[in-house]
Amino acid sequence: MLAGVFHGEGDVRVEEVPDPGAPPPEGAVLRIVRSSVCGSDLWPYRGKGGWKAGWRTGHEMTGIVESVGDEVTSVAPGDLVVSAFAWSCGDCDRCRADLQTSCRRSMFPGGADNEGGQAQRVTVPLADGSLWKVPDGTPEELYDQVHLLTDVLLTGYHAAKLAGVGQPGLGGAVADTAVVIGDGAVGLSGVVGAKLLGATTIVAVGHHADRLEHATGLGATHTIDLRGKDLHKAVLDITDGGAASVLECVGTTSALVDATAVVSPGGSVGSVGVPHGVEDARWLGRLFSKNAALRAGVAPTSAYVEQVGPLVASGELDVSAIASDRFALEDLPAAYESMDRRECVKAIVLPQEA
Amino acid sequence: MLAGVFHGEGDVRVEEVPDPGAPPPEGAVLRIVRSSVCGSDLWPYRGKGGWKAGWRTGHEMTGIVESVGDEVTSVAPGDLVVSAFAWSCGDCDRCRADLQTSCRRSMFPGGADNEGGQAQRVTVPLADGSLWKVPDGTPEELYDQVHLLTDVLLTGYHAAKLAGVGQPGLGGAVADTAVVIGDGAVGLSGVVGAKLLGATTIVAVGHHADRLEHATGLGATHTIDLRGKDLHKAVLDITDGGAASVLECVGTTSALVDATAVVSPGGSVGSVGVPHGVEDARWLGRLFSKNAALRAGVAPTSAYVEQVGPLVASGELDVSAIASDRFALEDLPAAYESMDRRECVKAIVLPQEA
Repeated sequence: MLAGVFHGEGDVRVEEVPDPGAPPPEGAVLRIVRSSVCGSDLWPYRGKGGWKAGWRTGHEMTGIVESVGDEVTSVAPGDLVVSAFAWSCGDCDRCRADLQTSCRRSMFPGGADNEGGQAQRVTVPLADGSLWKVPDGTPEELYDQVHLLTDVLLTGYHAAKLAGVGQPGLGGAVADTAVVIGDGAVGLSGVVGAKLLGATTIVAVGHHADRLEHATGLGATHTIDLRGKDLHKAVLDITDGGAASVLECVGTTSALVDATAVVSPGGSVGSVGVPHGVEDARWLGRLFSKNAALRAGVAPTSAYVEQVGPLVASGELDVSAIASDRFALEDLPAAYESMDRRECVKAIVLPQEA
Repeated sequence: MLAGVFHGEGDVRVEEVPDPGAPPPEGAVLRIVRSSVCGSDLWPYRGKGGWKAGWRTGHEMTGIVESVGDEVTSVAPGDLVVSAFAWSCGDCDRCRADLQTSCRRSMFPGGADNEGGQAQRVTVPLADGSLWKVPDGTPEELYDQVHLLTDVLLTGYHAAKLAGVGQPGLGGAVADTAVVIGDGAVGLSGVVGAKLLGATTIVAVGHHADRLEHATGLGATHTIDLRGKDLHKAVLDITDGGAASVLECVGTTSALVDATAVVSPGGSVGSVGVPHGVEDARWLGRLFSKNAALRAGVAPTSAYVEQVGPLVASGELDVSAIASDRFALEDLPAAYESMDRRECVKAIVLPQEA
């Protein structure tokens, strides 16, 4: 079969690799119908991560179950399933507490030990905890959007959760005002998450006029184009002293500085951008002066997919603006390049049946 | 009257200054019966803060109301009152949300504009929002402990609140395990706060055997003397994968590194040590990998004093171990030196009536 393999900075290739064998007792083999390139793939792609030559690539995958191990009970051959980007057992204390990304047996696609999602097939070693069965009858024209449930859409939802949208803050008031920093696929997903969780004022902040337009379509009530704007002043013009919830969907020092500047006293910053190059902590003083919170982490998508998945699979929630571009698996290098140059919001990758 | 005045690094003097005049309409003049030196006084005392020569010192004060302005309704001359260390109006949206330290009109004792608490008298400009009337009949032998309500005891309580003790975490489980980092007056107060809020396992972490003994007396179920110990391993020996709540009561990089190391996935670090010298943020990656929260800030003591105050004033809650040492106001320089050398947990300062 064909699969993406990392060779070095800026060099991901599609190569012939062995087909998966029989799945392990708790695992399943999927024939992948949708994969994609994630923003978090770009750091190692640019040589700023721990990827090594020869590693399989991709952690976002939607597929048809081909075979399952003896102990699998929740899915069966023929099912269309979305995989969590972090595989989990579904059964330990962490999984039961909806912290599946901290599962006691957590595993991640790709790398030295596992197959990756940018491929024709993949072995998911912990099927029951990691796979969500897409409702029967979901039309194929929604597969691109359904595939966003594997990571980015629920990562944005997680940002809204971490930022406390719809939850009472330190002072007891329910947070209904959200600022979303970042207009990439995660930021746009954050707008969706903030809306789903009940925010009534949603301010999307970014650098791209076209993406901010998409943000409005997805539920943003205000947009701020950072080019030439004083963000702090612009947010204070909309909110009275800051936003109770700030979704930090970038993961850089400047995004954290912005987020802590515009969060209100007692508010929360939810940070889902994998931190890179955050070498100073001067923004800590801003948290401190405002009794604000910073919650950071990777999304336990398995905790959310039951709530959000049916909305997407039924077409009730239209997130097509996020699934912006399609590439054939053979064109995976071009998909990486497009994401790297920010030419597309999200590169969906379609393997051919083989 | 006599009052503490800052002259430069390591140089606080007690000097004759003018008596307060009549209070402003919303203010009160107190005759101070207890004051104290705070850990946060030590940074500027050591030349690492913004204090300028000539500034009045001290923000912790308990006193008898001598006079009130026309608009004051909650206290009257003769009342024994504890002042919040941050003065607030009590009436704005922030105060009503129990975020009094972010009051729209917040003022702080001392500095260029206000009188300080290390003095015989003080003008509190916002009496109704800042003063708590001590219950009638509170015996004088409890005044030292009651005075702790002005700051440190409720700062420890705030750390426990920020760390989510007794609250459901990200995964829904109520946090009942707390690690308290720091065995100074704030750390010991954190132990008290964690116990009051319902923690059943409380691990006190510090460097001083005698203070850790006090921590046990105040409610710690375990103590860890950091000298020669691997904190992470020691905490993991007690908890299964970290503590849901970590009270960071120091405010240094190493304390944040320790706190983020021992917090459990989905847990919360509550940080009340004023951040000093936190120049790197490598600990951010630890928060991220665990979906943990960092909440930081100064304690809105006015939000808590109604709950905790009566317990102290009635003698039900014994926090005498925290009010460790007494100094006359005239010996204020010695009180600073004692705190600076960590010879005492807390220096209570007693002005003479004048």
